[in-house]
Amino acid sequence: MSGTGKLPVTFADIDAAARRIAPFIHRTPVFASHRLNEILGVDAYFKCENFQRIGAFKARGAHNAVFALSPEQAAPGVATHSSGNHAAALSLAARNRGIPAYIVMPSNAPRIKMESVRRLGGTIRLCEPTMRARGAAVAELIAECGATLIHPYDNDEVIAGQGTAALELFGQVPELDMVMAPVGGGGLMSGTAVAARAARRKMRIVACEPVQADDAYRSWASGRLQPGSPPDTIADGLRTTLGERAFVILRELLDDFVTVREASIVAAMRLVWEVMKVVIEPSAAVPVAALLEAGDRFRGQRVGVILSGGNADLDRLPWLAESARA
Amino acid sequence: MSGTGKLPVTFADIDAAARRIAPFIHRTPVFASHRLNEILGVDAYFKCENFQRIGAFKARGAHNAVFALSPEQAAPGVATHSSGNHAAALSLAARNRGIPAYIVMPSNAPRIKMESVRRLGGTIRLCEPTMRARGAAVAELIAECGATLIHPYDNDEVIAGQGTAALELFGQVPELDMVMAPVGGGGLMSGTAVAARAARRKMRIVACEPVQADDAYRSWASGRLQPGSPPDTIADGLRTTLGERAFVILRELLDDFVTVREASIVAAMRLVWEVMKVVIEPSAAVPVAALLEAGDRFRGQRVGVILSGGNADLDRLPWLAESARA
Repeated sequence: MSGTGKLPVTFADIDAAARRIAPFIHRTPVFASHRLNEILGVDAYFKCENFQRIGAFKARGAHNAVFALSPEQAAPGVATHSSGNHAAALSLAARNRGIPAYIVMPSNAPRIKMESVRRLGGTIRLCEPTMRARGAAVAELIAECGATLIHPYDNDEVIAGQGTAALELFGQVPELDMVMAPVGGGGLMSGTAVAARAARRKMRIVACEPVQADDAYRSWASGRLQPGSPPDTIADGLRTTLGERAFVILRELLDDFVTVREASIVAAMRLVWEVMKVVIEPSAAVPVAALLEAGDRFRGQRVGVILSGGNADLDRLPWLAESARA
Repeated sequence: MSGTGKLPVTFADIDAAARRIAPFIHRTPVFASHRLNEILGVDAYFKCENFQRIGAFKARGAHNAVFALSPEQAAPGVATHSSGNHAAALSLAARNRGIPAYIVMPSNAPRIKMESVRRLGGTIRLCEPTMRARGAAVAELIAECGATLIHPYDNDEVIAGQGTAALELFGQVPELDMVMAPVGGGGLMSGTAVAARAARRKMRIVACEPVQADDAYRSWASGRLQPGSPPDTIADGLRTTLGERAFVILRELLDDFVTVREASIVAAMRLVWEVMKVVIEPSAAVPVAALLEAGDRFRGQRVGVILSGGNADLDRLPWLAESARA
């Protein structure tokens, strides 16, 4: 908290990541909407990582981690545990490098997530849906085939890779007053923070999290990494606990932290679909929800928002579930 | 049919329209997707008019018609009948020119459509939901205040304006083998056809329509403008009957016509949302449905598809209605 020691990820790492992954990822567009600006009261620029390969920013970190491996390290393949976007991202990155990807998934993972991994050439190893079983399955895999573990967020190369989204954004939209991203494990937010601080000393760096999964907020506010209480949020990408590396970076660089209610996340998600005509997943709606809840707090500012992903379940839209419940 | 007489709209009209409307409309992006190409078996380029002002290509034709008026003609305002995208488009165009827009709407039009017109500064005149009442209300309005009728599609300037979407697309993606758009009143399709024939003699021009609202297909196939039988399609933008001007143009320029089933429209709509992460309305899904139904017919071709709009009802998704029915 007090020191300004060297952070685990630097701007140079992000810059190197951007060059490393450029052949494999999309330079996603930035969208803006008059109407949304009227509603939100800010000048918002949305970095559309929902249009990224595999539909989420995770393609960036996975490619950086996979392509940073030496040929000897890479050859036996990579492994991870994830039932979400990182599983698909790592499968794609490994396929692009021509090495195997082993994905440990809980046996109750949605069938559609499994299909997505298989389609991208990943090999799935199912385990019981407990943390202990997951850890054991990953350890076993690594011992068996010598694959390298690529953690979904607590990994320097992954964080540097995720930071390239913000790096691109700052090149596409100059002189932002503020940048916002959601926090789950913290890979995206910490990469974004490092890129932002290097880009512009005065840019405010604001993290956003659901109230109902606020371990990162509590960690930041208390200055100590807090255990995650059982998260209960529709923002399924943010149910993970803040990583150690991300904690160190956010403690140092974050200017502000906003936590948002579930109803605001649903309203923000629907608003972006309706007004901007782009599909975002609930996690991506969290910073938009922060702007919705902010009232006049950020009025008139130029705000960069990372729309983290678009892998929403089209058969279960939260506003329809709500109306059914009402 | 036999002759190749002068068409009501020429390439020069579209070119002039493009310059006239440029300050007021978006140059929409073109999207492509590896995964969608795998599924559809073609090399598809999607012109995203769902990202256009008011969420549909209609902003183009309305602006061209409004800004083509002389100051004397324009001063008393413009009028139309529409409960859809043209109503919002004309309201916006009139506001941009600083003149009134009067919109005749059936009293049973969705509240959300009325709000959208009012938000854009249009004045609504309600009428009974019959063709006769609608005609009478428009005539009355014009007699009262001297407004100029801007027909939603059977109007030369409107057709020329709609053709600017294809003109832009051909500049963004060279050497297309084929271009596809949906047909309702025929404004978009006929403007697209004129632009396409001027751009590339060998480009195939293909119109797409729901089987359950196939009056344009029947007109084209028989060589005579056919009355519309009561349309019964979820593609609400295509329930109108083919206009006289569009008929003359399509009869002359169209290479092919594909009609598609309702289930394919729903599947295509969902596919675009899921894979490309963009919200399109059912009418916009009709050419995608044609590609889905086509099998190997267009395999390997470079196909331009105009995604006509994104104003879908987020509270009534057709695939959810279907699953509820099942």
